[in-house]
Amino acid sequence: MQSEKLSSSAIASKLSELEHWSLVDTKLCRRFTFGDFVEAFGFMSRVALVAESMNHHPEWSNVYNRVEILLTTHDAGGITERDFTLAARINQLLASPSTSS
Amino acid sequence: MQSEKLSSSAIASKLSELEHWSLVDTKLCRRFTFGDFVEAFGFMSRVALVAESMNHHPEWSNVYNRVEILLTTHDAGGITERDFTLAARINQLLASPSTSS
Amino acid sequence: MQSEKLSSSAIASKLSELEHWSLVDTKLCRRFTFGDFVEAFGFMSRVALVAESMNHHPEWSNVYNRVEILLTTHDAGGITERDFTLAARINQLLASPSTSS
Amino acid sequence: MQSEKLSSSAIASKLSELEHWSLVDTKLCRRFTFGDFVEAFGFMSRVALVAESMNHHPEWSNVYNRVEILLTTHDAGGITERDFTLAARINQLLASPSTSS
Repeated sequence: MQSEKLSSSAIASKLSELEHWSLVDTKLCRRFTFGDFVEAFGFMSRVALVAESMNHHPEWSNVYNRVEILLTTHDAGGITERDFTLAARINQLLASPSTSS
Repeated sequence: MQSEKLSSSAIASKLSELEHWSLVDTKLCRRFTFGDFVEAFGFMSRVALVAESMNHHPEWSNVYNRVEILLTTHDAGGITERDFTLAARINQLLASPSTSS
Repeated sequence: MQSEKLSSSAIASKLSELEHWSLVDTKLCRRFTFGDFVEAFGFMSRVALVAESMNHHPEWSNVYNRVEILLTTHDAGGITERDFTLAARINQLLASPSTSS
Repeated sequence: MQSEKLSSSAIASKLSELEHWSLVDTKLCRRFTFGDFVEAFGFMSRVALVAESMNHHPEWSNVYNRVEILLTTHDAGGITERDFTLAARINQLLASPSTSS
């Protein structure tokens, strides 16, 4: 998987196609507000599984029902394709919320 | 919280008002199928938080995207109000799936 | 449970008996470094269960194998007994690490 | 990774070098007893992360402080190298319990 640092213009272009994320301190950032802590931590558990399977981990924080995720690639010294891939997968987790049949 | 074993007729009456659960081996049972393991385990994390906060824990199993939950109250030797309370809360977790604003 | 804001001297006195925690920005703070993300998130799952069962939640952040926990009681506008109780329980989680028989 | 079904003699040979696991219903089996539900579910969270990153998932169940894990490879119709790899990684989780510095 590509892991070179992306140029500012490449980041801007990709961000324009990625809903809900913005650039904060040269990292991809999305903030989430859930109904309560149970929802917030259940979401974090799903993100943790996705992140570990990609071997690409977020910088994130949680206070009760709020979660903030920052993505960057430390090895590359900036934002890479891997950050956009993880951001897109996190979006998908919420686009198709846990349902059971 | 009430923790006396419920009679068969009380259980039948309560089950008639509790969607998705049935009686299996004298325990309340519901089976879930999710999209994948990430969804299934994210759900289990939420159930774990609810169960621990009630100090009432399920008998449950998981294989990939499937989860089976059985509820009984060991101390009472059967199904009690606490099992119905936990079952209802588990239903609520899925009725209002993780969304963020 | 007591939830009044503690005085500075009460906090200092209690902190002297609580290993590993210090005062940062008028919150109780402890930083942890684990072997990897799996260890770090496994620890966070345990803290989440304890926090939810106390209905008292941390402000916390994670980057790969590092976790930082800050404790304060928003309703009281400062540090309360509940923060010290949660801090002590978090210490216990690591004093008696997961073992099985 | 090798995913052919192993012969009975290969399984017996490998099992002799894998502590704590035995053969139950033609699956690798290990049972764990922890101090409480928090410890048990914290362990399950770690196993979940390892399993998802291997894309190889256990059949497992939990009741309060007890966890039972069964490993087989459904696609291969029996036990494969992947099951032994996951079993060894699960053993490692407990050999080096969560500690922080």
